[in-house]
Amino acid sequence: MIETLLSQMQQGNRRALSRLLTQIENNPQTAEQILQSIYTQTGNAHIVGITGSPGSGKSTLVTELAKAFRQCNLKVAIIAVDPSSPFSGGALLGDRVRMNELAGDKGVFIRSLASRGSLGGLAKAAHQMAKLLDAAGYDLILIETVGAGQSEVDIVHTAHTTVVIEAPGMGDGVQSIKAGILEIADILVVNKADMPGSSKTINQLKGMLHLGPIGGTRHHGRIVKEVKLTQEESSTIWQIPVLPTSATEGEGIDQLADTVLAHRTHLEANDQWAEREKERSEQEMNQLIQERLMAYLQEKVPQSLLQEKITAVANREVDLFTAVDELLQKLEE
Amino acid sequence: MIETLLSQMQQGNRRALSRLLTQIENNPQTAEQILQSIYTQTGNAHIVGITGSPGSGKSTLVTELAKAFRQCNLKVAIIAVDPSSPFSGGALLGDRVRMNELAGDKGVFIRSLASRGSLGGLAKAAHQMAKLLDAAGYDLILIETVGAGQSEVDIVHTAHTTVVIEAPGMGDGVQSIKAGILEIADILVVNKADMPGSSKTINQLKGMLHLGPIGGTRHHGRIVKEVKLTQEESSTIWQIPVLPTSATEGEGIDQLADTVLAHRTHLEANDQWAEREKERSEQEMNQLIQERLMAYLQEKVPQSLLQEKITAVANREVDLFTAVDELLQKLEE
Repeated sequence: MIETLLSQMQQGNRRALSRLLTQIENNPQTAEQILQSIYTQTGNAHIVGITGSPGSGKSTLVTELAKAFRQCNLKVAIIAVDPSSPFSGGALLGDRVRMNELAGDKGVFIRSLASRGSLGGLAKAAHQMAKLLDAAGYDLILIETVGAGQSEVDIVHTAHTTVVIEAPGMGDGVQSIKAGILEIADILVVNKADMPGSSKTINQLKGMLHLGPIGGTRHHGRIVKEVKLTQEESSTIWQIPVLPTSATEGEGIDQLADTVLAHRTHLEANDQWAEREKERSEQEMNQLIQERLMAYLQEKVPQSLLQEKITAVANREVDLFTAVDELLQKLEE
Repeated sequence: MIETLLSQMQQGNRRALSRLLTQIENNPQTAEQILQSIYTQTGNAHIVGITGSPGSGKSTLVTELAKAFRQCNLKVAIIAVDPSSPFSGGALLGDRVRMNELAGDKGVFIRSLASRGSLGGLAKAAHQMAKLLDAAGYDLILIETVGAGQSEVDIVHTAHTTVVIEAPGMGDGVQSIKAGILEIADILVVNKADMPGSSKTINQLKGMLHLGPIGGTRHHGRIVKEVKLTQEESSTIWQIPVLPTSATEGEGIDQLADTVLAHRTHLEANDQWAEREKERSEQEMNQLIQERLMAYLQEKVPQSLLQEKITAVANREVDLFTAVDELLQKLEE
C-alpha cells in the first residue's frame, strides 16, 4: 500500500503525497519504511528554515517568498511547524489562512505540522517530511517555525539555509535573549520595514553581527569571530546579510528570494553543500544507531531489572556507573 | 590523589573541593571516578535552578537569596554558569564581583562555570558539580544561568526547584519568546519591583499562568492546563507563585527564600521529590548507557568503515537504514 502511494506520488498525485506525509507524522515505523524507499531519490531540494517570533509577520513573508520562487518556476513546499506551547494554545500560526492564496497553484504544496508530545519528535517529523517532499520533486522546501527555543533551532538545523525574521521596535533586552536564534542565521530579515524603528533594528542587528574583529560571518557552518583567516579562507565565507522587507507591501521579497538562492550557490561553490550533507548524514546515522542500540538493550535486559537499577541509583544504594556496567554486562551473557 | 582530595573535602577543606570541581570541569574521565566515589553520599541537597535574562538583576538576587538562607544557618553553594555566546563575549555575568560580599562566609561556596565548546557539556558539568557539592554537605545548591535557550532549560532541569526571574517593562512580544523558559518555572519572580511597569509585568505573568481552565499549576512535573483533576490530585498540585522582589533593596527576598524551601516541602509531602529523583536517575542512566554503547561501537567498527558509510549515505548511494543495519552487524561478528 505504501509502494502504491509512493508510485502515485512520483506521478504527481498530491493526495498520495499528503497521505504519505500523514503516515510519517503519525507512524514512526511506516515513516522508516517510506524513507528507506525514497532515500536515494533525495538530496536535490534546497531546504530553507524560516524562523521568527509571533508578530514578525513570518507567515505573510513565507507566502510572498513562495510566490517569488514560483515566478522562477521553482516548485515550492511549505512545512509550517507549530510547537503549540501550553501558553500559545496553538494559535500562533493561526494566520496561515492567508496561504489560501497559494492554494490554487499546483507548484506549491503546504503542510502544517502540530506538536504531539515531544518537541524532539516534531523536529524529526519535519526533517523526514522534508525528505519525502524532496523525493516528490519540490525544488525548495520552506520549513516555517516560531522562534521560541531549542526545538526551533533543531528544526532549522535540518535546513541548508536558515532565515531569521525580526520585526522593528523590539527592545534591547530582547536581542540578548534571541542570541541563540541569531547564531543560527544565514540570512537576517527585518520585516515590517515600513514601520517606525526599523532602521534602528537593522543597525542593532548589524552591530551584533560586527562585534567580532571580522564581523558576523560564517565559515564552514560556524560563526567566525576571533580567528584571522587567510585570503583563500575568506573567499569561502558567507557574509550574513540583514535584509529589510515589507511582506504586506511585497517589498524586498525578490531580493530575499535571490539571496536564498545565492546562499545555495555559495555553499555549492565552496563544497560546503556537500560538507553539510555529510555532517547531516553523520548526525542522522548516530541518532539511528543510538535508537537501535537502545532497542537492542531493552530487548536483552528485562524491564524489571532496569527498573530495579533505576530505583537503586535514585536511592543512592549504588552509583550510576556501577549500575550501568552491570546492565551492560547482560548484553554479553 | 583523588581519594586524598575527597577525604580532605569531607573534612571541610575548601581548596580540595575547588580542585575536585576543576577536575570535573576539565577531565571527563576523572569526573566519572569522582562521581562514582561520592555517588552514594549524594541526594540530600536541594538543587535550585535560577534563570533570568541579562538585566533582570539575577546576580544580585542570587547573592541576597544566599544571604537569606545563611540566616537559617543553611550551607549554600552557588554555581554561576556563563554560556558566553559569541554575541555576549562572556560579559553577561560580569557583575559577579558583587558576590564578593559573600566571600568571607565559610558556609558559602561560589563557583563559576564558563562555556568551553558544547552547551550540552556545560549542563552536564553543572550537574556533576552539583553532585559533588551535595556530597560536600551543602544544603542548597543554587545554579544560576542566563535565560537564553535550551542550554538553560537543560541546566535547570537538573534542579528540584526552578526559579525564573523577570524584570518589569519587557514588551508583550518578549513573553511569547520566553514561553519556553516560563514553562519550566516552579516559582516566578519579578525583580526590580520598585521600577515602573512592575505591576503590569506581574499581571501579564499571572495572566499567562491562568490561560488554562485551572491555571498555571504543575502536577508531577508537567504543567496542567486542560485536565480536570480530582480533589485528591488537586492537593498534590503546586500553584506557581509570582513573587515581586527588589534585590538591591533587599525586599521580598525572605519570602522568596521561604517559597523555595516550601517547594521542597511540597515535593516531599507528595512523593514528588522521590519521583523526580527517579526520573533524573533514569535519564542519567539512559545517557550513560548511550555513551557506553556508542563507545563500544566505535571500538568494534573501524573508523574508515564508518566514514565510508557516512559518505555513501550523504551521496544517496545507500539509504540511512540499510547503512546503519550493516554497521550494527559488525557488532555481532
